[in-house]
Amino acid sequence: MSKKFRVAIIGCGTIAHSAHIPNYLKIENVEITYFCDIIPERADEAVKKYGCGKAVYDYRELLGAEDIDVVSVCTHNDYHPVVSIDFMRAGKDVLCEKPAAKTLAEVLDMQKTARETRRMLSIGVCNRFGTAVNKIKDLIDNGDLGEVYHVYTAFRRQRSIPGLGGCFTRKDSAGGGVLIDTGVHYLDLILYCLGEPKLLSASGKAYNKIGWDIQNYVYSGGMWAEHTADFENGVFDVDDAVTGLIRTEGATISFNGAWAQNIAESENYIDFLGTKAGVRLAYCGNFKFYHIKNGMLMTSEPAYNTKDFYEEEIRSFLESTVTREPNRASIDHFVPTAKILQGIYDSSDQNREVTL
Amino acid sequence: MSKKFRVAIIGCGTIAHSAHIPNYLKIENVEITYFCDIIPERADEAVKKYGCGKAVYDYRELLGAEDIDVVSVCTHNDYHPVVSIDFMRAGKDVLCEKPAAKTLAEVLDMQKTARETRRMLSIGVCNRFGTAVNKIKDLIDNGDLGEVYHVYTAFRRQRSIPGLGGCFTRKDSAGGGVLIDTGVHYLDLILYCLGEPKLLSASGKAYNKIGWDIQNYVYSGGMWAEHTADFENGVFDVDDAVTGLIRTEGATISFNGAWAQNIAESENYIDFLGTKAGVRLAYCGNFKFYHIKNGMLMTSEPAYNTKDFYEEEIRSFLESTVTREPNRASIDHFVPTAKILQGIYDSSDQNREVTL
Amino acid sequence: MSKKFRVAIIGCGTIAHSAHIPNYLKIENVEITYFCDIIPERADEAVKKYGCGKAVYDYRELLGAEDIDVVSVCTHNDYHPVVSIDFMRAGKDVLCEKPAAKTLAEVLDMQKTARETRRMLSIGVCNRFGTAVNKIKDLIDNGDLGEVYHVYTAFRRQRSIPGLGGCFTRKDSAGGGVLIDTGVHYLDLILYCLGEPKLLSASGKAYNKIGWDIQNYVYSGGMWAEHTADFENGVFDVDDAVTGLIRTEGATISFNGAWAQNIAESENYIDFLGTKAGVRLAYCGNFKFYHIKNGMLMTSEPAYNTKDFYEEEIRSFLESTVTREPNRASIDHFVPTAKILQGIYDSSDQNREVTL
Amino acid sequence: MSKKFRVAIIGCGTIAHSAHIPNYLKIENVEITYFCDIIPERADEAVKKYGCGKAVYDYRELLGAEDIDVVSVCTHNDYHPVVSIDFMRAGKDVLCEKPAAKTLAEVLDMQKTARETRRMLSIGVCNRFGTAVNKIKDLIDNGDLGEVYHVYTAFRRQRSIPGLGGCFTRKDSAGGGVLIDTGVHYLDLILYCLGEPKLLSASGKAYNKIGWDIQNYVYSGGMWAEHTADFENGVFDVDDAVTGLIRTEGATISFNGAWAQNIAESENYIDFLGTKAGVRLAYCGNFKFYHIKNGMLMTSEPAYNTKDFYEEEIRSFLESTVTREPNRASIDHFVPTAKILQGIYDSSDQNREVTL
Repeated sequence: MSKKFRVAIIGCGTIAHSAHIPNYLKIENVEITYFCDIIPERADEAVKKYGCGKAVYDYRELLGAEDIDVVSVCTHNDYHPVVSIDFMRAGKDVLCEKPAAKTLAEVLDMQKTARETRRMLSIGVCNRFGTAVNKIKDLIDNGDLGEVYHVYTAFRRQRSIPGLGGCFTRKDSAGGGVLIDTGVHYLDLILYCLGEPKLLSASGKAYNKIGWDIQNYVYSGGMWAEHTADFENGVFDVDDAVTGLIRTEGATISFNGAWAQNIAESENYIDFLGTKAGVRLAYCGNFKFYHIKNGMLMTSEPAYNTKDFYEEEIRSFLESTVTREPNRASIDHFVPTAKILQGIYDSSDQNREVTL
Repeated sequence: MSKKFRVAIIGCGTIAHSAHIPNYLKIENVEITYFCDIIPERADEAVKKYGCGKAVYDYRELLGAEDIDVVSVCTHNDYHPVVSIDFMRAGKDVLCEKPAAKTLAEVLDMQKTARETRRMLSIGVCNRFGTAVNKIKDLIDNGDLGEVYHVYTAFRRQRSIPGLGGCFTRKDSAGGGVLIDTGVHYLDLILYCLGEPKLLSASGKAYNKIGWDIQNYVYSGGMWAEHTADFENGVFDVDDAVTGLIRTEGATISFNGAWAQNIAESENYIDFLGTKAGVRLAYCGNFKFYHIKNGMLMTSEPAYNTKDFYEEEIRSFLESTVTREPNRASIDHFVPTAKILQGIYDSSDQNREVTL
Repeated sequence: MSKKFRVAIIGCGTIAHSAHIPNYLKIENVEITYFCDIIPERADEAVKKYGCGKAVYDYRELLGAEDIDVVSVCTHNDYHPVVSIDFMRAGKDVLCEKPAAKTLAEVLDMQKTARETRRMLSIGVCNRFGTAVNKIKDLIDNGDLGEVYHVYTAFRRQRSIPGLGGCFTRKDSAGGGVLIDTGVHYLDLILYCLGEPKLLSASGKAYNKIGWDIQNYVYSGGMWAEHTADFENGVFDVDDAVTGLIRTEGATISFNGAWAQNIAESENYIDFLGTKAGVRLAYCGNFKFYHIKNGMLMTSEPAYNTKDFYEEEIRSFLESTVTREPNRASIDHFVPTAKILQGIYDSSDQNREVTL
Repeated sequence: MSKKFRVAIIGCGTIAHSAHIPNYLKIENVEITYFCDIIPERADEAVKKYGCGKAVYDYRELLGAEDIDVVSVCTHNDYHPVVSIDFMRAGKDVLCEKPAAKTLAEVLDMQKTARETRRMLSIGVCNRFGTAVNKIKDLIDNGDLGEVYHVYTAFRRQRSIPGLGGCFTRKDSAGGGVLIDTGVHYLDLILYCLGEPKLLSASGKAYNKIGWDIQNYVYSGGMWAEHTADFENGVFDVDDAVTGLIRTEGATISFNGAWAQNIAESENYIDFLGTKAGVRLAYCGNFKFYHIKNGMLMTSEPAYNTKDFYEEEIRSFLESTVTREPNRASIDHFVPTAKILQGIYDSSDQNREVTL
């Protein structure tokens, strides 16, 4: 890309360091001009670590900055909408981490603002840029699976609560637990592969059965997330397990997810059931393609070149700011996913199926 | 058991030969007095094979017979209600194969007749007599799992349609496919283990996406069921895949099932998610118990003596005819399972959640 | 098949009992009328075991028998030509075990006799009736592999000499060792799959480096073949290892084989290298299909119904005796394989490539 | 070594950076005085990277240089002979990368020049300095394998073409493909282990069946070689697969190799079949020793200290320049390997076995 991009990073936590910053720095003509975090040390450290940009502690100081072309919003979920909207109103294009917001209403506000301000607003649903995901989408689009009539996905781990007692596990900051933080990736990539069919209804149940008892939470060590846990005074008031069934005008989608469950088998996959063939995708891994050839049931494992989905996500976002065409991860494409998340939480609260 | 039991076998097909007859013959004081089948050769062959009983070709000839104490109904599903009801009205106790009937209405008729005639009517939900199932029920009843809040079960195989084009795959004779024939076992044992909680609603979708195309059905050989298939003129108008979500006053239950799917991984298990511990039962096999001990996440595999669940089922039924106390597999205990089956099929037809 | 077949079994050893007799008995309208063996006990035992037929000790007594339609020749290799030719001259159709004969000259004599007498003469190259082999042939014929330019096959085992010191390991009775007894299957099925391309040359070397020292032959027990070994006075004067390269007008074929080698890794497979795709067949097992789809290198494992290749071989042979059309295993189809066997042995003797 | 060595590196590509330069720098008394490359940036970068030497862009400028004792020739294959010969005529000892040259005629010229000028000329057949290779050679030399009568080697990968469309895949620059670039290592180390037996004949076939179609070449990413590929305008006119059979006065040697094949199983090993024992060497890895002990078939995996074969190669070369005794990798030892390479290519062209 020949255009020069000046980037402000808002929120210098894990996702900024692992996904956004290193991938911006891979791209020619990109300069990070600001690192912003409400914890001043974090902003300062980022400037020092990457040897570029200025440290800022309140994003509002940047709303009038001229040396910013695009903004990456890497804050807690509760700040996603306000930060994104403020920057769009200030004329900047925004890449906002997933989930776009805690509630559907906020997501729709963000979408409305993007339209009014004619700004690009992409959401960090990085799997839309995953190689395997796109290979599967190709197979579906080419008709290799026939009609895809059902998708089942499991995102279940025995123990994987991130930052117990921190911003991930408080409803006021995160909006929810395993569904909105982890399930969002699975459901979004399913909708993407299916071509975003019209949604009909959602029925589900979200549980908080293990995480609430923080002081007695038992886990098998080594997980980054527990290192930041506050076992004394932390709050866990979000879902640590969830189940649901989605109806669309095309396939049904059913799922089970858990950040914590008393089943030791980890299952993290998506099954696409088609009339002609099927696919099982190991989340963030390879897939198997089950098809029929010459009267034989075939199980095929592909090999192919892979690209870093974070880098592709950022390249695609930057390109969209040049072409002024929303990309595949734009807020418009994310709204259906947000509807499902909201629908499942509503269905769980009301203990009945809800219309989407 | 000191009482002598004279047994009539109605229907001399696979289940009679594999489950009922050999297990009656294991029990002291049991005599099979009649083998009945509308296909005369089958009745004749049974008499010859087992060296006992008389061959009959119309069960109605037996309604007045005095040398019958109990009746095993092993016919196609569509004959279950009429045969069971006729024999109960004729004063006989009845063990009827699963599913009790094609529809909930018929099941309720059977229940009503049992009550009116004060006859024992047991259903062949043999897993209620399985050793592992009862070990799990003990763990739940003893509180070892804490609150069981969700159960997920998979009864999914790539290719396992029984008798393609025969009585199993026609709605008029079977009432349904993978849900009513296979899922019935899984759902019934789940309700049994959970203590038959009050049911609230069912949401599901049943599919016929692969089996209908009988002439092009591809399978990997060696399955008994395909040997009897009618690839030319057979009919397949039942569900070959199903998904659903059940709400109860206790746990939710979600499931995926398939007689045929284009995913080669077979999954046949039930996960009980409890607040203190969990269990995964391999269907008709052993289970794993996931619990916490001394701050450690433990995965435990039990070993124990097992009994043949068909033999236990028949012993329990015969005992109930002596004690005049309905057993754990009596029609009253099966009604909730029948409600779920009907609920899922209704929900699928109406494409919305239904109240149970 | 509606025609009735009366069968004489000539030679009642291992292959007769494991392959020929049980498969004839599976087929409707087949009656075994004679069991012949020069060891009288063997013929007598076969009559007793199968409850049919008469025992005969000299096959020449049967040349005038009227109650024989077809003959299975299951003798040692050295008797294959004379027995087959005598029966063809006596008007019988013949299924002769592989290899057809010890030398190409004898094979050509057999072919000549079959033509002169207008008799069916099939050779027991059973892999031509294997399901996986035919699936591969279909893939090749359909062009799925593109041009098959090279085939490599390994039939190598650390220790698998059959009947050390018996009829398998003496050149006078067997004609050769691992190449003519085991390699014949691999090479014949390769030619079959390739469509029997015109042969150009053979270069190879056959070794007798381990078996000759019978008294010090070390093996890991449990192999049937060693049970019949004569470690005292037996003779081993055939090849226990072989390597070769065949040129045809199509693909080249290279191979390594061993009945005995001081390498513990067993390798028994055939690799078909095509320009568009490739196949690795595990001998007598399944195969993998390596192809390209949507820019991905795919490794596919098929599942399919399999049939017993011995039964198919015999059914095909019997059908050919009705239709009077030579089948895919007829002597004409075997001659190219015989040319390769002879060519490799000649090349080994002369230590140079020979023209075929 | 007490003598001081001044080294000129001719050609600053991959092999210079990965093998030659770092290993010269490990050795006491070595100074690299010149880095030469016809691409000036490469020479300049080498000087900068290693902080020594002068950059030169035409090797002929160095023919009269006094501050050079030895020369490492790391150019494309086509420049190996002329550069090596020019430096030998200029009085320098030369270590030339493998293969020594594109054709046997050129190799013989190099040998002749070395003799005439009494210069040391070593070839970079580094496996002659590998620890496992020498352990195997010791076993053979000690008689532990008995007579080694056959060697089979596979150097087969699904996709491993180096630098598609670059100097490796053009016949004018490389002389050939997988045989001359990769097979050379395997065949040379086999001859080394066998004690360089007298060669009799070669029969083989070299194929170009996949690489030629560069624009549609599918590979699974991450291979360095493809990063430099020219998918647009590159040329691939060398062998991507090869098979062959070599006769010697001792063992036969057969092989299959592929830079690209539609078989996903990678096989890179050498099997030495001996009358008393055998060895399988995983190329550049460990080996298994299969022998007989106390009547048992033993599979033994050795453990031992390993040395870097590039460092040993260079130390040995430098030592030879002091002792004036050609080392085990001298041009005289490489000539038999070159004869095989030429023989296989000739045999492939003529489609018949050729005398060596």
